[in-house]
Amino acid sequence: MNYMNNRMMISKTVIGVLVSVFFTFSLLGQDKSQDEDALFIKSIFDHSLNEGKAYDWLYSMSTRIGGRLAGSPEAAAAVEYTRQELLDLKLDSVWLQPCEVPHWVRGEKEQVRIVNSKKMGTIDLNALALGNSVGTGEYGVTAEVIEVKSLKEVEELGSKVKGKIVFFNRPFDNSQINTFRGYGGAVDQRTAGPFEASKNGAVAAIVRSITGSLDDVPHTGVTLTRDGVPKIPAVAISTKAANLLSRLMEEEPVRVFIRTTCENLPKENSYNVIGEIKGSEFPDEIIVVGGHLDSWDVGGGAHDDGSGCVHSMDVLNILKSLNYKPKRTIRCVLFMNEENGLAGGLEYAKISNANNEKHVFGLESDAGGFTPEAFSCDGDKEIFNTKFQKLYKWLPLLEPYNITLKKGGSGADINPLKSQKGLLCGLRPDSQRYFDYHHTAEDTIDKVHPRELALGSAAMASLIYLVDKYGL
Amino acid sequence: MNYMNNRMMISKTVIGVLVSVFFTFSLLGQDKSQDEDALFIKSIFDHSLNEGKAYDWLYSMSTRIGGRLAGSPEAAAAVEYTRQELLDLKLDSVWLQPCEVPHWVRGEKEQVRIVNSKKMGTIDLNALALGNSVGTGEYGVTAEVIEVKSLKEVEELGSKVKGKIVFFNRPFDNSQINTFRGYGGAVDQRTAGPFEASKNGAVAAIVRSITGSLDDVPHTGVTLTRDGVPKIPAVAISTKAANLLSRLMEEEPVRVFIRTTCENLPKENSYNVIGEIKGSEFPDEIIVVGGHLDSWDVGGGAHDDGSGCVHSMDVLNILKSLNYKPKRTIRCVLFMNEENGLAGGLEYAKISNANNEKHVFGLESDAGGFTPEAFSCDGDKEIFNTKFQKLYKWLPLLEPYNITLKKGGSGADINPLKSQKGLLCGLRPDSQRYFDYHHTAEDTIDKVHPRELALGSAAMASLIYLVDKYGL
Repeated sequence: MNYMNNRMMISKTVIGVLVSVFFTFSLLGQDKSQDEDALFIKSIFDHSLNEGKAYDWLYSMSTRIGGRLAGSPEAAAAVEYTRQELLDLKLDSVWLQPCEVPHWVRGEKEQVRIVNSKKMGTIDLNALALGNSVGTGEYGVTAEVIEVKSLKEVEELGSKVKGKIVFFNRPFDNSQINTFRGYGGAVDQRTAGPFEASKNGAVAAIVRSITGSLDDVPHTGVTLTRDGVPKIPAVAISTKAANLLSRLMEEEPVRVFIRTTCENLPKENSYNVIGEIKGSEFPDEIIVVGGHLDSWDVGGGAHDDGSGCVHSMDVLNILKSLNYKPKRTIRCVLFMNEENGLAGGLEYAKISNANNEKHVFGLESDAGGFTPEAFSCDGDKEIFNTKFQKLYKWLPLLEPYNITLKKGGSGADINPLKSQKGLLCGLRPDSQRYFDYHHTAEDTIDKVHPRELALGSAAMASLIYLVDKYGL
Repeated sequence: MNYMNNRMMISKTVIGVLVSVFFTFSLLGQDKSQDEDALFIKSIFDHSLNEGKAYDWLYSMSTRIGGRLAGSPEAAAAVEYTRQELLDLKLDSVWLQPCEVPHWVRGEKEQVRIVNSKKMGTIDLNALALGNSVGTGEYGVTAEVIEVKSLKEVEELGSKVKGKIVFFNRPFDNSQINTFRGYGGAVDQRTAGPFEASKNGAVAAIVRSITGSLDDVPHTGVTLTRDGVPKIPAVAISTKAANLLSRLMEEEPVRVFIRTTCENLPKENSYNVIGEIKGSEFPDEIIVVGGHLDSWDVGGGAHDDGSGCVHSMDVLNILKSLNYKPKRTIRCVLFMNEENGLAGGLEYAKISNANNEKHVFGLESDAGGFTPEAFSCDGDKEIFNTKFQKLYKWLPLLEPYNITLKKGGSGADINPLKSQKGLLCGLRPDSQRYFDYHHTAEDTIDKVHPRELALGSAAMASLIYLVDKYGL
């Protein structure tokens, strides 16, 4: 595109964001306060795009601290770093909320190797142990591989998987427009696959990485356990490695060697990091905004969920910088241990309930730092429709920023607050690139665009401003 | 985000795209044909995401051929490559439409150097000559620099700029949500700045790169000329270089050396590349879909506008692969010379008018290969409202793909068809990253995401399917 096309475009769109918002409201016969809201929201976006702190914070968290799995020294560093940054914002209070977290460590670099194939000899496959899984022991495990596409298939195979390595290889559905649906359609293999295999006597599990991208990057993530079912070693291999393994198995029986030295260590003390601005009129009505502070150990946890943390911190920073005095208490919570236990989210709700707190609104960002597209809204069914309809009336104020409102889940960390009967929302950014990086060594700061990140903070601050000003 | 959050999200959104479209239509009491449309559009997206050719074509165009300014050997290679690829699609006809294009060549690597600064000595600045500008000659030009922020300022300075180098340094407005508005607010410095400076006797012009990104990458682009105003050498410098130059000028007078050896060579013969599927019922009603085949010489022209070309080619490929038989004639046109002359677009309209053709619909993609957000619609004012309203009724079929419809410009190449009184639209992808790469050596294939590109082709094919099936 050169100047001509653009000049033409500008001539057509010379009516800017503000003017079009005003126009919308005059058509609807809305009052002056909504012109003020449009102006204030414009100032939120201006501030975030030009002076927001989110990107600088994320740079520090994802490069200087790096991957920060619950219980690790990096997670402890992230707690202290974000506490200091929240203190620097001169909020009304900043504190740490203790919670006990699992402490899983990856150990030495994983070895996953096709051994003595007739066609291809010995081949190393790029792999990562799954979170919470056990190690193979020093000498590893070698066994024949059996490929399945579903949990049901393992159940049907029954004792045939005994002594074998079960290879879960159902691909991610790339036809989904929202890539989270592709993820949702495949992730049971990672979360439940290993224990289903173990129930039938398998000695280990290999899972195809849960991504639509065909590359050589393995994606880790948590695997679940069940009482009474022995834990077995479990690894994710890259999608290219999965295709290779599968193709080879069509031609000959394949044996694989796996060596992992990961361990589940004793629980550790950790913290949710909390900062708040006290409400001037309704201090007991709490609005919470958050993300999760822990991330997987590989990579920098830049999109998952460093972005959500700095989004949430910047909501408070932006509102304070614009000298906004909230009527309700606005609290930023950086939750610990979402990735492999949810200890932070559960503890926060437990303490909140014990203190008879009332969260009137919750907003979580845990879907990456990409261009925001929507807020997805949820809540106890008794209150949901009424509150969602109230929120929906503000849509014209968000539409100039290409943001819509829809029904759907909110976020794992705030979900335990549902019984307090406030509305719960999640930021929904463009999802196209998220699962390229999710839970990998590639989830680093260079994958985050400063403008896209800043639009997310601004969208969240705008919604929280409206909820605070008018209530729900 | 781990499995829990996602599982929750999925439980809420288990009603997929198709089901929600059906639901929308049953609520509206729409008929069965629209269920069919929803199904067909779903099949377009499935095909594009899983089997589309756009990314492979773009890989070849942007890496094997590379930058392809009108008149260059690379542009000729792109003409032949795309002609061959269109022939392989077995369309009803494929042809080349001759057009005469300017032939500007960059020459040797530009030198732009702050000379003998007291504070900083001699510093080289990263620069690119502007398209259609003249060279300095072998020995370059050295002169004092005078900084301005607008064309008006040059006019007011009058003869004070005589013998000087005028430095246009108004920054890109990063507060704009749509970055094309930031571009539109700054680009007059590049297009008109040099000749305005020349009118008052300046010996050369330096322009701050038209981007919101603060980095060391210069952005080229066309500069205009006017009869009777001598052409002067003109370069763009990176935004970091512009900041450095400006800061230094606050402390001392600054002299800069510029050496460019660019040249305007005699005009060349080139071509628009055209392929079409003949309409079965209304062959005289033409639907055109296109992008521009030329790009700047630096970089690979991946987003600008390789993406628009492969989007347009894939529209025909997808519809043909799905065995769709259009009622109207659907024509893909890859226009030559949008960047520095628009010869292709003007010639196409001229020949079309001479042949009494009737373009009922035009769709251009020239805003990058990012996730599509909207179609921007334009047309002769006599017909615009009626036709736009008809189009707007199809919005529920596009919304499941996060695509909306709005008023605004279409595209530079199809704009000359406006007198034929068809509706003209432009694809509008997410604009956040476009001006990081626009007109630079960084506009390469690694900046394009295969899924984002494929969503663009599918969005365009869907709209064209609806226009073809129902008319406008």
